[in-house]
Amino acid sequence: MLKVPAHQVAGHRAGSGKLGPLVDDSGRFYKPLQGDERGAREAAFYTSFSSDTKVPDHISRFFPKFYGSQLVEASDGSGMKPHVVLQDLTFSRVNPSVMDIKIGSRTWGPEESADQIQKCMKKDRESSSLTLGFRLSGMQIFGTKESGYWRPEKTWIQSISADEVRLLLRKFVSSDTSASKPDCAFASIVYGGSKGILSQLLELKAWFEDQTSYHFFACSILMMFEKELALDGKSPCPEIKLVDFAHVYEGKGVIDHNFLGGLCSLIKFISEILTTPEDSATNGLLDDVHRSHVYPENGSA
Amino acid sequence: MLKVPAHQVAGHRAGSGKLGPLVDDSGRFYKPLQGDERGAREAAFYTSFSSDTKVPDHISRFFPKFYGSQLVEASDGSGMKPHVVLQDLTFSRVNPSVMDIKIGSRTWGPEESADQIQKCMKKDRESSSLTLGFRLSGMQIFGTKESGYWRPEKTWIQSISADEVRLLLRKFVSSDTSASKPDCAFASIVYGGSKGILSQLLELKAWFEDQTSYHFFACSILMMFEKELALDGKSPCPEIKLVDFAHVYEGKGVIDHNFLGGLCSLIKFISEILTTPEDSATNGLLDDVHRSHVYPENGSA
Repeated sequence: MLKVPAHQVAGHRAGSGKLGPLVDDSGRFYKPLQGDERGAREAAFYTSFSSDTKVPDHISRFFPKFYGSQLVEASDGSGMKPHVVLQDLTFSRVNPSVMDIKIGSRTWGPEESADQIQKCMKKDRESSSLTLGFRLSGMQIFGTKESGYWRPEKTWIQSISADEVRLLLRKFVSSDTSASKPDCAFASIVYGGSKGILSQLLELKAWFEDQTSYHFFACSILMMFEKELALDGKSPCPEIKLVDFAHVYEGKGVIDHNFLGGLCSLIKFISEILTTPEDSATNGLLDDVHRSHVYPENGSA
Repeated sequence: MLKVPAHQVAGHRAGSGKLGPLVDDSGRFYKPLQGDERGAREAAFYTSFSSDTKVPDHISRFFPKFYGSQLVEASDGSGMKPHVVLQDLTFSRVNPSVMDIKIGSRTWGPEESADQIQKCMKKDRESSSLTLGFRLSGMQIFGTKESGYWRPEKTWIQSISADEVRLLLRKFVSSDTSASKPDCAFASIVYGGSKGILSQLLELKAWFEDQTSYHFFACSILMMFEKELALDGKSPCPEIKLVDFAHVYEGKGVIDHNFLGGLCSLIKFISEILTTPEDSATNGLLDDVHRSHVYPENGSA
């Protein structure tokens, strides 16, 4: 009854004996709890956050709904394991384009081991985290029913330069996934507008300027929309969601300046696409990507 | 003709054979250029910034005026050395209260040596930089002509907790420097108001959300005001200035998320003092400070 999620673009994937999240056909997402500190933190976060009356509705909507914890047959065949049961964020979406962006120049919290800090710092420095304050963790862009999804390789996407990040954020809202010069055809209806992604990011920013309850390390923002709706003249339902709370710490009266700084940097990147959708300074940069990193797949419709 | 600055609260101090900045009696501040990369960066920053037409006037006023470089007899008696000639920021101020706040959870830039990074990271973790996104580097609060200044010891102030930082930010705008329960008597006229420090910090923040030319590592915000003016019923002339640009890097089209995050954290601390000036949760915390770290000195009036 449980199956591997179709639109997971980052993190551990279930399947072929591997442990990863599962979904059911009623819109629930089962995320296995890592057996260490991380699993405990993630469960504690969902429990505490979902009953936190200080979080306003216009902010809690950016988080997956939480349905408690449950013992579920693990995807790696290792038997019944504890999972957090969450909202399946792409449930009912048709051929969604999805981008997973890990926020913060620092992805390690105050209580990590020296080893873990070294490991995270290395990744932060080798990716764009340290320079941009965020890094792309994974993405899929729906092209057409024939071409399917464009999914760059995960190890590649986590090591790209600022200019390549800029270009992928443009490509994400462009009409032709195989063009090396993104046209940003959907920028104004996905990133822009009063219900667009930029507007949602700004709401989130205002909350982060004020909230001092939670510090989110190594947490991601998912950006999603449906290109086909746009082609039908409808709203592509642009939406952001926060995911991955295995490194959430108590804020202790201090704002999460690490997350906020990275969020502001992402906001600046998106704003620039809206003000200069025609910018072609970085065109051509992705030619190599197209030769080596295209993974066409059929759409799910 | 050149003399040791009276109100320098952080950084290397001139005097007794030591190299440090000097001032003249016309309002100029002579800062010796460190002989390495740092000196070169600081001089390059002032040269580039002072001729940068993209920086609006309401922002450039937050930076010391720059009068070029000059060979000056060094304070350590080592002969003529290159100095940057800057505006003396406390010139013409009478008994100024001054706080030096180093902004950013990370004080090392992208091109530092591995040794330098280790050294800075250690300091960032031992101080409040990593947790708060800023640390107090030094301060003086004018009390009365009789009691003079209250100047906490520099090694102590750089190692204090979040609650102690909170309390020192309250004490800074309180009427009695020897009271362990700060009354925040001057909070509304120093931090608050349309020309107060919070308002200036918010202007600076708006610029940092947008500017992608400079990344300021290990740079400080100085906060200054004159208590005696307030006691005379005048404005205490609250003012912020940015100083110390030995670790400024090109922004390369990315915002300075490290500085911005720390700045937003400081803004939150100051805002809270304005909304709850009566808060006494941390009262008593500074009793020890008073016993061990008071350095009374005569005022300069």
